[in-house]
Amino acid sequence: MYIQTIQWQNDAIKIIDQTKLPNKLQYLYIRDLVSLWQAIRMMKIRGAPALGAAAALGVYLGLKDSRARQFDEFMKELGQVINYIGSCRPTARNIFWASERMRTVVLNHKEKSVEKLKRLLYQEAKRIIQEEKLTCRKLSIYGQTLIRDKDRILTICNAGILATIDYGTALGVIYCAYKRKKRIKVFVCETRPLLQGARLTTWELKRRGIDTTLICDAMAATLIKAGNIDKIITGADRIASNGDIANKVGTYNLAVLAKYHKIPFYVAAPTSTFDLDTKNGKDIPIEKRPDFEVIRLFFKKPIAVSGIKVFNPAFDVTPYKLITAIVTERGIISPPYHKNILEVLKKKDAFR
Amino acid sequence: MYIQTIQWQNDAIKIIDQTKLPNKLQYLYIRDLVSLWQAIRMMKIRGAPALGAAAALGVYLGLKDSRARQFDEFMKELGQVINYIGSCRPTARNIFWASERMRTVVLNHKEKSVEKLKRLLYQEAKRIIQEEKLTCRKLSIYGQTLIRDKDRILTICNAGILATIDYGTALGVIYCAYKRKKRIKVFVCETRPLLQGARLTTWELKRRGIDTTLICDAMAATLIKAGNIDKIITGADRIASNGDIANKVGTYNLAVLAKYHKIPFYVAAPTSTFDLDTKNGKDIPIEKRPDFEVIRLFFKKPIAVSGIKVFNPAFDVTPYKLITAIVTERGIISPPYHKNILEVLKKKDAFR
Repeated sequence: MYIQTIQWQNDAIKIIDQTKLPNKLQYLYIRDLVSLWQAIRMMKIRGAPALGAAAALGVYLGLKDSRARQFDEFMKELGQVINYIGSCRPTARNIFWASERMRTVVLNHKEKSVEKLKRLLYQEAKRIIQEEKLTCRKLSIYGQTLIRDKDRILTICNAGILATIDYGTALGVIYCAYKRKKRIKVFVCETRPLLQGARLTTWELKRRGIDTTLICDAMAATLIKAGNIDKIITGADRIASNGDIANKVGTYNLAVLAKYHKIPFYVAAPTSTFDLDTKNGKDIPIEKRPDFEVIRLFFKKPIAVSGIKVFNPAFDVTPYKLITAIVTERGIISPPYHKNILEVLKKKDAFR
Repeated sequence: MYIQTIQWQNDAIKIIDQTKLPNKLQYLYIRDLVSLWQAIRMMKIRGAPALGAAAALGVYLGLKDSRARQFDEFMKELGQVINYIGSCRPTARNIFWASERMRTVVLNHKEKSVEKLKRLLYQEAKRIIQEEKLTCRKLSIYGQTLIRDKDRILTICNAGILATIDYGTALGVIYCAYKRKKRIKVFVCETRPLLQGARLTTWELKRRGIDTTLICDAMAATLIKAGNIDKIITGADRIASNGDIANKVGTYNLAVLAKYHKIPFYVAAPTSTFDLDTKNGKDIPIEKRPDFEVIRLFFKKPIAVSGIKVFNPAFDVTPYKLITAIVTERGIISPPYHKNILEVLKKKDAFR
């Protein structure tokens, strides 16, 4: 059964409610911006590329019923909608990338009527989704060249169908290698606190029949030390121009382990995840998530005594020095990143 | 309020049921060997030194109603009881250490009546508990010399009151430093899958009023990288003669992080945790725990799709090369361990 994480349907944004997985595959129709903001915040939809699509559709959703008559008025509303969506999760680059594409399409058609601008926004959102679908496929074809027969691959969080539109980045690479008959084994970090690895990634891999083993995050070191992991591959939420990446908290830990045990550490992400205006990882804003995510497992009984402090960043930064290569839809980028990222990103055009 | 993790009371082994914490402080009276075996297996009581005490009292519990009339018969029963207790959790050295002390006391009094031997077993169990209490205090006084004012200390699992009789090893060091007015902050890895850090260690630290922050295990790397951790201290379940230690899975991960970021990694354990017959970590048996501990959070709804594989070792091995020093009740052991461990352990007598 083909599934798509996010799409426009019945005059609404239709998403899979990812907080219900793996126990239930349930769709949700989002008809207003506040609901979208809350759905993103509550992780009903997550994953940088999927959030890019959500932002694009969100901009259209927020403006399709605009009563603006003039361009300036429409632009002002557009700015407010983009700021509102951008306030939800600060780290994922793709939200801002998609929003800016939506803004640009309007700016490029100042002479058009508001009704025509709405139509253009709809078309641009659809185009972003189509392009990002293709992007994952391309990226995965490049990435699978890094995977050998019988590789044992470790990943964290979810960088698959559910993190994108329909195929994945890190998991896309794995799907593509598997389709090409490479006999791989995948080890999945459960990814505390919200368990995207346990809940989402094992669900995806099982659907495809891939040999999957779930581990607790701190067991990765034990597996790698025993020689049971050949390579690590993760997604990214934002990539700075020097190659530093922000990704789900725990990613940096894996990168250090890869370096210490001399196994490759790969990152797979579309070029929409790159942020050339961010020089290095220190400048990437890291989202702080609420304490209860750590203290209460899915809002059940607390697992810790009340009144203690909690550290709960959603992401961490992995310095470029720990990254073996970055897989994109335009090819695989190797060090030196400060030079090669720019080269790959400028290949087609400055913006994308 | 003074609490003791394990003691003999009302003709039974009285323990705190640690699976009920932090929500309830509930005691449990254990009156037969099967119940003891199950309590240990289910982690109602855990922690290597506490398990040593449980084994000592367990040997007495298993023999106090023996109908043996002759020494040989009594010895045979004793062997069976010791084997049964030892089959429960293979990694914790203290179980075997305490059992052998119990066996030795009987062997040293072959001429005594069975009733007298039972009395001797009772006294030896009490002596082990008294000694191990003192051991934690001594060890902590040595260990606190490693802690400076304003240190930010990271620990994993629970090596406190609940892992020992009443004070702790790694946490004992922290308690002692705190009592001596060192203004410390403690960061606690939640310790998946069974969350001993979140459930037990934060509960203990809060009781004493120590500044405590709970983190998910994979966030340790992020904290250390940001320069927010000055040192790491953990307990141990078994220490080989070369200094390799087995401890809660996740410990090795922390040791690698400490090495990579150049901060000290300390281990605190009584000499009863050392196993001179084990040459190195490879020879330490590592307990495999059931899959459901990872897949079901406290036996509630599964967090992963059914039918996937799980990797769930209870412990991992940290090679001596990653260990800055080992704190014991006879002083702090520094490298080279293969030489210095032997020296410290032989200081008093060969056995203890």
